[in-house]
Amino acid sequence: MKRFLSIISLALAIAGTLNAQELTNFAFWGQKPIVSPEIQNDSVTFRLKADYATVVKLSGSWMENPWTGTIDMRRGENNVWEVKLPLPSPEIYTYNFVVDGVSVNDPQNVLVQRDGTRYLPMLIVPGERTENYVEAGKHGTVSHPWYHSNILGMDRRLTVYTPYGYENNPRKKYPVLYLLHGAGGDEEAWTSMGRAAQILDNLIEKGLAEPMIVVMPNGNPGQAAARTLNIPEKALDWRAPENRDSYVKSLCTEIVPFIEKNFRAVSNPASRAIAGLSMGGGHTISASILYPELFDYICPLSAAGSATPEQIAALKKAGVKLYFLACGNTDFLFKGAEEMHAKLDEQGLKHEYFVSEGGHVWANWRLYLNTFAPKLFK
Amino acid sequence: MKRFLSIISLALAIAGTLNAQELTNFAFWGQKPIVSPEIQNDSVTFRLKADYATVVKLSGSWMENPWTGTIDMRRGENNVWEVKLPLPSPEIYTYNFVVDGVSVNDPQNVLVQRDGTRYLPMLIVPGERTENYVEAGKHGTVSHPWYHSNILGMDRRLTVYTPYGYENNPRKKYPVLYLLHGAGGDEEAWTSMGRAAQILDNLIEKGLAEPMIVVMPNGNPGQAAARTLNIPEKALDWRAPENRDSYVKSLCTEIVPFIEKNFRAVSNPASRAIAGLSMGGGHTISASILYPELFDYICPLSAAGSATPEQIAALKKAGVKLYFLACGNTDFLFKGAEEMHAKLDEQGLKHEYFVSEGGHVWANWRLYLNTFAPKLFK
Repeated sequence: MKRFLSIISLALAIAGTLNAQELTNFAFWGQKPIVSPEIQNDSVTFRLKADYATVVKLSGSWMENPWTGTIDMRRGENNVWEVKLPLPSPEIYTYNFVVDGVSVNDPQNVLVQRDGTRYLPMLIVPGERTENYVEAGKHGTVSHPWYHSNILGMDRRLTVYTPYGYENNPRKKYPVLYLLHGAGGDEEAWTSMGRAAQILDNLIEKGLAEPMIVVMPNGNPGQAAARTLNIPEKALDWRAPENRDSYVKSLCTEIVPFIEKNFRAVSNPASRAIAGLSMGGGHTISASILYPELFDYICPLSAAGSATPEQIAALKKAGVKLYFLACGNTDFLFKGAEEMHAKLDEQGLKHEYFVSEGGHVWANWRLYLNTFAPKLFK
Repeated sequence: MKRFLSIISLALAIAGTLNAQELTNFAFWGQKPIVSPEIQNDSVTFRLKADYATVVKLSGSWMENPWTGTIDMRRGENNVWEVKLPLPSPEIYTYNFVVDGVSVNDPQNVLVQRDGTRYLPMLIVPGERTENYVEAGKHGTVSHPWYHSNILGMDRRLTVYTPYGYENNPRKKYPVLYLLHGAGGDEEAWTSMGRAAQILDNLIEKGLAEPMIVVMPNGNPGQAAARTLNIPEKALDWRAPENRDSYVKSLCTEIVPFIEKNFRAVSNPASRAIAGLSMGGGHTISASILYPELFDYICPLSAAGSATPEQIAALKKAGVKLYFLACGNTDFLFKGAEEMHAKLDEQGLKHEYFVSEGGHVWANWRLYLNTFAPKLFK
């Protein structure tokens, strides 16, 4: 090994300018690079080099029971373990290997999403369902400004998407969608797992959605920023109504003014939308109750929250251009969605009730964003 | 397991709003959460649960030979493997476990840097050396705008840091540092491995550096953006002088004007600095040769590049406020730095020659940024 490394060092020295520490996916001489995952027609092959492993399995989010279901991989030439599967239907999936009982990410796959503290390799199966989840030709700008919250007592990090053309049209003002994550998520959840930038880029490029700003705050009241930044947190339970309301108050009275001051945003209810999933769906409903005048577009997705008939009546009076209520038909919160749908009907608040297959998963939340974003600001 | 999962589902349903898919680091009832890495006084302990593994080792970038050197871990209670080591000196290190011969990231550690296509858990050892590498109290904004390159024929992604206060001082203009990565890197290398945002935040907060904009382009001429975005690439060898010069031309005639149009940047040579590591040090030197008037501050770091006496003379004539040449004393490019130092001396171009311990590694590049940033724009 030492001698081999000297040969590498020599080669590096000859190449002259090769940056050893930044070098990646280095195909050693005489070794075929391992490709994983490899999609070919209607199959997908996963590969992992594991010289001394006894059992290597694959676990994928498309499997019937992704918590427990794994598929055995077979040891091949050079101890490259392999499994070839029928391609699942178009969607973004996550997967990992299990080497002698330990989860292992795919070292060949740079496409990784972060779910809280876990990094998960992605399998993107192309098709109509995913066509807006991959990179468009024209890209908006994703930025991470910090706003100061007097209410929560800290500087807090936001993710902000401005659409393609924002830089080149310095007089144009844009409507704003506030897009909220669920419990366990943070200000990067919608761009990492939710593919929000890709979905908006594609919808806008195709002329299907209005060019808009999308603001993705951190919805954990005790957290300044994603845990990747390692900033000490306050132990505030997000389930406590007073903490939920503090965050919603910060959103509506601190973040909205921050955005409308620092970005070229149109400042009126007809140019403001709010949407959120799970806990963020609860925040969406809370915001519509506490500040019924603020948003004309309201989209609770797989929402953990509800409203009283009186609150719905007040919201109806304040004026709503779109109320988009969405949930999966096997979601553990589906009953709540059904009840909310009935209550909205009772109060005569016109709304779209969008029921999809499946449960409390990002496949649904991407679908919902892709479905309601074209309906905003029109 | 199925029954256990039903209990979880029930608990989720009771909690009412828990987002199962976003949930992470979930401490199951009755199980102590595993902490890794754990720093205590002058030791650090690494832990990994591996029920069926035969051999578990630890590999760390602080070890004498991080390519081959690994330390055995010991199986403990509940199959949690553990090793306790003396704490290495203050620095940011990367490490991974090796489970039966396969590299495994630490599932307990959300602090991860990306090196090209590899994701690597970080160990940050606190101390004077690293005090500017951790989060400051006040944060600048990191954004990812795209500029159009006619020269390279594509839209290309940038990373831009604007300092704390940028949003609240709408009349203030700032000087700009162009900060370039090495081969194998991309527009996220300096913020991920280089901790550029943290270093600037801390230096500015302490009053040690001028508030400045930092622009970190993608230096691979065939690449629109980091591979995490999965955009098809042009096969352009970065070592070919014509490709290097195309990128440098795009930097100086497309990126600089884009920044000065879209950000509140001061547009004069005294307010422009350029710095880069390895391949980016080559780009820095090339830019200073091709556009000697453009930058008054020039900082080649562990640079893969050189200049002729005539080129240095032309640069001297154009005017240089700071020439900061840095290299590690065991870097495989150290000889080139020594020669450049001698040539600069010969031509009487006043410069700082900063030689550090060690080689071609991010520990040095963070140190260099932390050292030269306070010298800029003064």
